[in-house]
Amino acid sequence: MDFAPSPKGQEMLDMLRDFMARHVIPREQDYLAEIRRLCPGADWTQWQVSPLMQGWKAQAKAAGLWNLFLPDQDHGAGLGLQDYARLAEEMGRIPFAAEIFNCNAPDTGNMEVLHHFGSDAQKDRWLTPLLAGDIRSVFCMTEPEVASSDATTMQATITEEGDDLILNGRKWWSTGIGHPNARIAIFMGLSNPEAARHAQHSMVLVPLDTPGVTIDRMLPTFGEYDPPLGHGEVTFTDVRVPRDNLILGLGRGFEIAQGRLGPGRIHHCMRAIGAAERALELMIRRGNTREAFRRKLIDLGANRDHVARARIAIDQARLLTLYAAWKIDTQGVRAAMTEISAIKVVAPSMLQEVVDRAMQIHGGMGLTHDVPLSELFIVARALRYADGPDEVHLAQVARRELKKYADNRA
Amino acid sequence: MDFAPSPKGQEMLDMLRDFMARHVIPREQDYLAEIRRLCPGADWTQWQVSPLMQGWKAQAKAAGLWNLFLPDQDHGAGLGLQDYARLAEEMGRIPFAAEIFNCNAPDTGNMEVLHHFGSDAQKDRWLTPLLAGDIRSVFCMTEPEVASSDATTMQATITEEGDDLILNGRKWWSTGIGHPNARIAIFMGLSNPEAARHAQHSMVLVPLDTPGVTIDRMLPTFGEYDPPLGHGEVTFTDVRVPRDNLILGLGRGFEIAQGRLGPGRIHHCMRAIGAAERALELMIRRGNTREAFRRKLIDLGANRDHVARARIAIDQARLLTLYAAWKIDTQGVRAAMTEISAIKVVAPSMLQEVVDRAMQIHGGMGLTHDVPLSELFIVARALRYADGPDEVHLAQVARRELKKYADNRA
Amino acid sequence: MDFAPSPKGQEMLDMLRDFMARHVIPREQDYLAEIRRLCPGADWTQWQVSPLMQGWKAQAKAAGLWNLFLPDQDHGAGLGLQDYARLAEEMGRIPFAAEIFNCNAPDTGNMEVLHHFGSDAQKDRWLTPLLAGDIRSVFCMTEPEVASSDATTMQATITEEGDDLILNGRKWWSTGIGHPNARIAIFMGLSNPEAARHAQHSMVLVPLDTPGVTIDRMLPTFGEYDPPLGHGEVTFTDVRVPRDNLILGLGRGFEIAQGRLGPGRIHHCMRAIGAAERALELMIRRGNTREAFRRKLIDLGANRDHVARARIAIDQARLLTLYAAWKIDTQGVRAAMTEISAIKVVAPSMLQEVVDRAMQIHGGMGLTHDVPLSELFIVARALRYADGPDEVHLAQVARRELKKYADNRA
Amino acid sequence: MDFAPSPKGQEMLDMLRDFMARHVIPREQDYLAEIRRLCPGADWTQWQVSPLMQGWKAQAKAAGLWNLFLPDQDHGAGLGLQDYARLAEEMGRIPFAAEIFNCNAPDTGNMEVLHHFGSDAQKDRWLTPLLAGDIRSVFCMTEPEVASSDATTMQATITEEGDDLILNGRKWWSTGIGHPNARIAIFMGLSNPEAARHAQHSMVLVPLDTPGVTIDRMLPTFGEYDPPLGHGEVTFTDVRVPRDNLILGLGRGFEIAQGRLGPGRIHHCMRAIGAAERALELMIRRGNTREAFRRKLIDLGANRDHVARARIAIDQARLLTLYAAWKIDTQGVRAAMTEISAIKVVAPSMLQEVVDRAMQIHGGMGLTHDVPLSELFIVARALRYADGPDEVHLAQVARRELKKYADNRA
Repeated sequence: MDFAPSPKGQEMLDMLRDFMARHVIPREQDYLAEIRRLCPGADWTQWQVSPLMQGWKAQAKAAGLWNLFLPDQDHGAGLGLQDYARLAEEMGRIPFAAEIFNCNAPDTGNMEVLHHFGSDAQKDRWLTPLLAGDIRSVFCMTEPEVASSDATTMQATITEEGDDLILNGRKWWSTGIGHPNARIAIFMGLSNPEAARHAQHSMVLVPLDTPGVTIDRMLPTFGEYDPPLGHGEVTFTDVRVPRDNLILGLGRGFEIAQGRLGPGRIHHCMRAIGAAERALELMIRRGNTREAFRRKLIDLGANRDHVARARIAIDQARLLTLYAAWKIDTQGVRAAMTEISAIKVVAPSMLQEVVDRAMQIHGGMGLTHDVPLSELFIVARALRYADGPDEVHLAQVARRELKKYADNRA
Repeated sequence: MDFAPSPKGQEMLDMLRDFMARHVIPREQDYLAEIRRLCPGADWTQWQVSPLMQGWKAQAKAAGLWNLFLPDQDHGAGLGLQDYARLAEEMGRIPFAAEIFNCNAPDTGNMEVLHHFGSDAQKDRWLTPLLAGDIRSVFCMTEPEVASSDATTMQATITEEGDDLILNGRKWWSTGIGHPNARIAIFMGLSNPEAARHAQHSMVLVPLDTPGVTIDRMLPTFGEYDPPLGHGEVTFTDVRVPRDNLILGLGRGFEIAQGRLGPGRIHHCMRAIGAAERALELMIRRGNTREAFRRKLIDLGANRDHVARARIAIDQARLLTLYAAWKIDTQGVRAAMTEISAIKVVAPSMLQEVVDRAMQIHGGMGLTHDVPLSELFIVARALRYADGPDEVHLAQVARRELKKYADNRA
Repeated sequence: MDFAPSPKGQEMLDMLRDFMARHVIPREQDYLAEIRRLCPGADWTQWQVSPLMQGWKAQAKAAGLWNLFLPDQDHGAGLGLQDYARLAEEMGRIPFAAEIFNCNAPDTGNMEVLHHFGSDAQKDRWLTPLLAGDIRSVFCMTEPEVASSDATTMQATITEEGDDLILNGRKWWSTGIGHPNARIAIFMGLSNPEAARHAQHSMVLVPLDTPGVTIDRMLPTFGEYDPPLGHGEVTFTDVRVPRDNLILGLGRGFEIAQGRLGPGRIHHCMRAIGAAERALELMIRRGNTREAFRRKLIDLGANRDHVARARIAIDQARLLTLYAAWKIDTQGVRAAMTEISAIKVVAPSMLQEVVDRAMQIHGGMGLTHDVPLSELFIVARALRYADGPDEVHLAQVARRELKKYADNRA
Repeated sequence: MDFAPSPKGQEMLDMLRDFMARHVIPREQDYLAEIRRLCPGADWTQWQVSPLMQGWKAQAKAAGLWNLFLPDQDHGAGLGLQDYARLAEEMGRIPFAAEIFNCNAPDTGNMEVLHHFGSDAQKDRWLTPLLAGDIRSVFCMTEPEVASSDATTMQATITEEGDDLILNGRKWWSTGIGHPNARIAIFMGLSNPEAARHAQHSMVLVPLDTPGVTIDRMLPTFGEYDPPLGHGEVTFTDVRVPRDNLILGLGRGFEIAQGRLGPGRIHHCMRAIGAAERALELMIRRGNTREAFRRKLIDLGANRDHVARARIAIDQARLLTLYAAWKIDTQGVRAAMTEISAIKVVAPSMLQEVVDRAMQIHGGMGLTHDVPLSELFIVARALRYADGPDEVHLAQVARRELKKYADNRA
């Protein structure tokens, strides 16, 4: 056994930490202030790109800290998921940091889809500027009218008409659609209703300026709009795109989704772990420096127990994520389904719990923007639905566990 | 034993339910839309009073559903805390409803303080318009620089200068200070630093237009500003008020606070219980009407268990609150200290848990304003600090429990 | 509202406490030693009745502390369930104490069945000596081969043959069958397999010396045999009893069971609450008198929080049990089904948790017989199955809650 | 990274699994019956060695499955802790299995102490027969009168008298002292009360037949005596041994203990993980084969969620244990202190929870000896104290975590 990252992984991790420490962490509050100024409310059409973010992106690209999530040597960093996981953790300490390294969802997943399944023309047109960080992209899957936990219930349609495809439907939680640079969406819809259950859907590329695409609103999460990305509710009304925009082929949407979601869940989970480390640090620092009843807060009540339990929970979540990443790297996504589901259940709840405890020691300040806790809390809470709610993942884990004893011997 | 409300309590409860069902519930979304329109951002100076709320208040007053919290027969409804508790629960189903009946914090607590401890002049000047619902008030106690969990650490000062008192300090979480009708604050500060630990502080009435009172900002809670009340950060710089504005006497601040907080905590807890009932109803309705994997959501996974556990937790919290209220009514606040602390720990966490589960079954919608869950969640989360954090109340309960066995016999 | 017991209930409670304090508590260890001596192993045929217990019973009867569970004025104490509940709590502090007052399961339930549903002849023959405490009885319902959580799966049979009934089947968890004075069992079995689901079973009185009744073994619980009661596994092979031994009528077994279980569950729960009070006291006394790292154990780690949470959980469980008892007293068992199920879920788990914490502060001693914690733990653990497992009760609570919103409006 | 065992580790694991499947598992019930017959009660002087166990030991030794815990190539299996951990997990599925492979506590720890710190004469006299499995040994550390959580409170004394050492004191939880082959104890006591806190104690070898050594009783755990090992309470009264029996030197007891406890905790934790796997298997098999309400038990209520959560908790505990083992192997015990404490908190509680759930689905049977659940439960419960209670380990983890932010910057 060996729990250490690869030499290259370690090297990139050191570089990333150094970059964060020098450039990003000292200006975290500046960025947040800038975003509040440039993207003040729910009206995304007024949102502007942050010059600070643009500068960081240029610096990161120059430093070779770019597209780190892509295992491909030519376009990405050539790192396995197990090494990238540690980088994602580091980025997760600051909610907006992944974008600096062109590693933010949903662009990462979309780039992976195009990289693995896109035609050459699709790659030229969309993957190249995405890899360059020049444009942003959207993934339109979740719908307001059906339970997203069961993707087979999806109602949006894709119909063939000559050489074109006609898209109709309503989507929401289309993350990134508020970004001033958002240009392209991957739209998933029902194309083959008569086919077998997992061969009914397709994915199609839709430029956002196509007639019939209407952004209805940005969705708040606990009152936050998450600019400049935003989470949009979007209507597609007789949206016509050329058949060349189809990815991989009709009825292959689930096949693509499967490949897209495995690594993406690992990314989310490792960022959650970094976020939890941040929250724990904030908790301890606050508890060490404020007093009540003539003792440090950290020494009151069960606070030290909470610190210990947070430390343990974070370490266990990290190990499970790394294990899942290692299984994906060495045995493929299918072999790691239990571990992917497991960590998808564990990491967000762990983060929510750690942030909740960190909030508690901050008193009322914990609810404000003076510390990033409420933002991290929303990340955790949302992640318990995103990419499959806890309930679905638990059911999956149970189903596979029960299969082991299908002989029904008592 | 008898767990039923008094006949009068039952009658008022029926009236209140009827009022809510006829007038308030059907227009809940209208009010929220109006408030978003009239109070759009963080700048409270632009906030306007809602005509809908003004109308409801007039109706409620006409219907005799007014100042229900005040046990006094003349100015209030003449109900014991145990009967009022059930009314508070009913109001708690809608976060803004208490104001309709002039029963919202912090005005209730402030009115109680004035009613019990105010001079006749103070009552004429401030209690009368508060009871009429014509003005709103603020309670300035919590400070940003010290742990509010230990009120003895308070730094704001009250110094005597001739017939005047001079106030200095910085306060935050001054709820209601953003309200267009806010006129008066009760300010608590250190007046007698040489006195015994609980005789060092005083409470003083400060009209909000007194020179030296500066509202620095409204504090966000998870990004929400809670208009038209708001939670303000306020600086008091050499604020001069006549000595007549002193309540009860110098050094008697804790004595007043004690009386103020007991019933107030019961109010909070019962509203939390009503909020939890609302969340449970939303959870079940959603689970009953949406399907995945060809079954109702409510029938999947552990959802029915969650419903049962929520039902049980709510009922247990209600019983504990009613018991605390009954003890206060029959034996006084001091005799009920354990129960008050206990319910203050139980109810907010229970609400947070129930809302969290209700959110989960709503999927992404649970995070938005399309359902009141995120607002109820914030109520729960904030209440785990407000009026004493869980940790302080647990310590109090433990302290009193240990005293029972102080003979140290193993 | 009124949370106080009735004057008579309070008077009996004072008497009981006094009796326990004078007579029972000082000799608790003596009794345990006597039982270990008189009933040393798994072979129940060697078990002997404790002279100490016989003496206590005589004293209690003389003091009027007898058959307190029976609301009937003539044969019992004339107390409502809400008043008896507090007496049961007091008895629960010592696992064997209920027998002293002729208030131990399963005799209480059996006496209630005979009292409510027995013929005059049945009462003369069995109820009279049971009320006198001269004999002990057994309830044979649970079976080893089917899930007792669903009583309709019961396999034991009752067939008519002339004026006799023939019983066949295997039962286990027949509590009390090891007692030297055990004389009579109530046997439940399938008599009308063609009838509607809840009209297929009957209850029959079976003297234990009837040919064909074979006790196979006493069942250990965590290695304990719970003498002198014991929990037996019993085979009934062509056991012939006269038809007069049938209670109420063929097919009416569930009707009887329903009435039997409601109050019985309240008794169990209140004893569990008393047991938890005992465990909490032991926890605090131990924590107050032992030191580590130069501080009292009770002041280390989260121990004070554990004390507070135990205090709160006990109080909440008590209130819920009293509320259920009050509902049964005033509105009947059917109206209180949710509350009965709720407390049946809450009280045993609460006790298990409190005992677990008390054990932890006792270190290794907590596992031994030097303190009653392991015995209380087993009580808790067993009670999570007995009279319906948690899962069934949660399902019942959920079912009734969902019915409230059956209109399916989202 | 690499989560796979070494080739040799994998080979030994395959051999062990095969041995267990062929020889041990089919005769598990036979062994338990034999032990109940040969060691029927609390009187350990009557206990006899099981011929079945003797046979298994001979077979295991012949198969090279012997002393697997010892990393030493000559006397042990030459496996690192990370590889041995997987073997220990496998043994943990059956509570008595470790002894078959001469890998049971406390002999393992005692052999490690002698191997690392024993003199040649001590090794010849005691280590050789222990490695051969011919005798059994005891570790006398815990005392009834002081909190074992703080080992510095130990009261037993070691005083020098000429060339002899005189031992006095009372010990309990001396595991294995009831074994018919128990011959030697390692006794820890206070020898240098004036020295620094961790240099006051020494360890001394005491043959059990030395005059003054009196076994007072075997301690029950929930009524079980755990034969043929037993957990003894022992009095040492002026026990005289030659100074040559001192291990390493006066005042070096803590130094020895530290080295002894690290790997031992890993062994315990991995056995706990195997035990949890066993419990989960039992839970699923029972749930798959029994029905209620016309559905399999496993499909009722939240049972599938419980299966999934158990799967996840077990996997997380295994990963943390393996990580701790890897850290010990590669960086030493001191570097792994946080991980050792962490897993010592996690694994026993995880096991307790999984067994508790498995019990619940077994109904009353779960409490009996018909399934090993109550025995596994006791293992879990006891392990939450043994080798340091949870509270101490949490405090250690917190202490080290707080140190990271000792700069006190908020």
